[in-house]
Amino acid sequence: MSDDLMRAALAYHAEPTPGKISVELTKPAQTQLDLSLAYSPGVAEPCRAIAADVDNSYVYTGKGNLVAVISNGTAVLGLGNLGAPACKPVMEGKALLFKRFAGINSIDIEVSTEDAGEFIDTVARIADTFGGINLEDIRAPECFEIERALSERCNIPVFHDDQHGTAIVTAAGMINALEIQGKRLEDVIITCLGAGAAAIACMRLLVSLGARRENIFMLDRRGVIYAGREGVNAYKQEFANRTDKRSLSDAIAGADVFVGLSGADLLSAEMLLSMAPKPVVFACSNPDPEIKPELARKTRSDLVIATGRSDYPNQVNNVLGFPFIFRGALDVRASTINEEMKIAAVHALCALAKEPVPDAVLQACGEKELSFGPEYIIPKPMDDRLLHSLAPAVARAAVESGVARLPLPVKYAAA
Amino acid sequence: MSDDLMRAALAYHAEPTPGKISVELTKPAQTQLDLSLAYSPGVAEPCRAIAADVDNSYVYTGKGNLVAVISNGTAVLGLGNLGAPACKPVMEGKALLFKRFAGINSIDIEVSTEDAGEFIDTVARIADTFGGINLEDIRAPECFEIERALSERCNIPVFHDDQHGTAIVTAAGMINALEIQGKRLEDVIITCLGAGAAAIACMRLLVSLGARRENIFMLDRRGVIYAGREGVNAYKQEFANRTDKRSLSDAIAGADVFVGLSGADLLSAEMLLSMAPKPVVFACSNPDPEIKPELARKTRSDLVIATGRSDYPNQVNNVLGFPFIFRGALDVRASTINEEMKIAAVHALCALAKEPVPDAVLQACGEKELSFGPEYIIPKPMDDRLLHSLAPAVARAAVESGVARLPLPVKYAAA
Repeated sequence: MSDDLMRAALAYHAEPTPGKISVELTKPAQTQLDLSLAYSPGVAEPCRAIAADVDNSYVYTGKGNLVAVISNGTAVLGLGNLGAPACKPVMEGKALLFKRFAGINSIDIEVSTEDAGEFIDTVARIADTFGGINLEDIRAPECFEIERALSERCNIPVFHDDQHGTAIVTAAGMINALEIQGKRLEDVIITCLGAGAAAIACMRLLVSLGARRENIFMLDRRGVIYAGREGVNAYKQEFANRTDKRSLSDAIAGADVFVGLSGADLLSAEMLLSMAPKPVVFACSNPDPEIKPELARKTRSDLVIATGRSDYPNQVNNVLGFPFIFRGALDVRASTINEEMKIAAVHALCALAKEPVPDAVLQACGEKELSFGPEYIIPKPMDDRLLHSLAPAVARAAVESGVARLPLPVKYAAA
Repeated sequence: MSDDLMRAALAYHAEPTPGKISVELTKPAQTQLDLSLAYSPGVAEPCRAIAADVDNSYVYTGKGNLVAVISNGTAVLGLGNLGAPACKPVMEGKALLFKRFAGINSIDIEVSTEDAGEFIDTVARIADTFGGINLEDIRAPECFEIERALSERCNIPVFHDDQHGTAIVTAAGMINALEIQGKRLEDVIITCLGAGAAAIACMRLLVSLGARRENIFMLDRRGVIYAGREGVNAYKQEFANRTDKRSLSDAIAGADVFVGLSGADLLSAEMLLSMAPKPVVFACSNPDPEIKPELARKTRSDLVIATGRSDYPNQVNNVLGFPFIFRGALDVRASTINEEMKIAAVHALCALAKEPVPDAVLQACGEKELSFGPEYIIPKPMDDRLLHSLAPAVARAAVESGVARLPLPVKYAAA
């Protein structure tokens, strides 16, 4: 990050008021009568109505359009375990994105514990407050158990965005990139550098979409995760294949796909040259990708490359997913965000990238031209068609898979 | 409550969108550059700054102007234990009042447990999120232990408004009412009908302001709490006097002051007649007072009466206190709301009621005239001078009592 951007970011957060979000009134509160409706004695009525039927929470309170962004700060961005207070800017930022992109009221909650059990109990006990829970920046492997336990204990969607948001956007980009390269998910050899929450979720979703588990080679800091390796947790174990490959050089040779969720500059030009013809490289480490796009393109002209950065084509950005996935889930009061809904989001993203891009969208994205191809495999964050593509698709999948508590809204029926 | 008001309250809460508050952006989020400041990669900078010095939370996040309104719904208004989901309209209402009256961002958190220990752990673990915690509608006696434990575990103000907010506003009204009646707090005999959180906090604060504990007779559902009575919890025990009085009739005879925090119509005209000359009656049960003001006035012309209702003079309303107390506390980053700050709020309220009321305030309050006397012992909620009277007084008391972490703001120096 440049010094200028660093200074600008601090100023942005500090001035004119600290932080990025506020709470505002949506109802009049000027007169004594207003207050007697908003508070005592009038407020007793909605309380009674909810006590009689808890679903009235969705009628008389903001619960149904309120998502909590919750973290304990154990894996903040790529910065590591900074603790609860220091992750607040990220969580407020996520809340800002929920509102900006999908009109969802969102607040951040920082939970000061590194103990998974304490975290689960805490979040489960405050869950009635919200219509959905977005977990964020919680380190692996605890994040898996935390999400599983909370999904079980809460009857609202619980979604760990670092896992599923990343997986959905990555999978959409991957399917389109492979189409451009003339390959099928069912056939490709995948090297996944990184074995944290995002990596595991990405590979799980790719398997769910057709990739073969035996074609995936996952690496952590100690190298390839192979069947029989000692000290591999249960989540990584899922991707432990019988293989002689041990290093990244071993794993990348002949691979069709590289997915990097690891660290800067870990993929060399030499390794890239050893990949199969027409490779797909997702170098998603942020801010510095596993291989610089300039170097990658200079090394091989037959590749499709995506990164996590906004200053290169094909940005794999979670903001393409979570606001709209929650919008769809909330709009049909889904009790969870299941595999069907995630896959619906993937396909909606894939389809949108193939649509002609209207001038207004080009302008909003600051682009002269965008047409489906190696430099445009996935929509841009500023594309306001995302909301109208993804949310109805997710809502429809919720209804069709039986987890929606409301029918498809009329506004989505035609979508 | 009339059927019309009940219907209007439901409509107010349901339309055009459910609930009363929303989350909004305070910073631009239109362009790609905006987003790179608000979120990745720029957001890493404030995270690092907070990791280096946790006080930077107050510089780069909304924490310092954010108060959580937290309840478990065990004592909702006068409705009893409705549970966490059903208390949400009250908590959202309180959040609305924080913003409306003092510009404080406030969100509600409902905690789904009746266990005091679980409640304490839950709130303590999410406390880093907030600049202050307002506890609400938690039943006695657990509320005392909950507030004590949380005050100890959190380094931000923790304030149980049902206790202290009620006590502060009641005490202010009481001091002024006694002045009008030519009596002193040090001398009066007080009958307190009710022995819940509010009643105990009111009597504690009156003692702190000069009332004599031995002159206070507190009654619960079983009658006078006297020394030696069986099955009296430690909090009520504080007010167990050596006395032969057993019933309300016994206790009220000859009393100067009646404070009712109990139920409708429990104070009869006959009892009122038995009080000392120039009595003060605070009939604060809501919505129906312990004695109807019409009946009280018809029975005795020498009394000063206050209620909890907005449609009679002298409304004892917590909104006269909590928004401004928190405003003052947050503005000097007080670590707690201590006795000195509460007493400063009491005196500021007393003083404001004696000030001439400007036309603009009369208009806002919908009054033709307000001048200090039996029908105007305490300011009106719509009086916008409250903010400028109470907040500086509370902030100053925090600084002078050594619990402020910032000096008095310049804007308060002259107040």
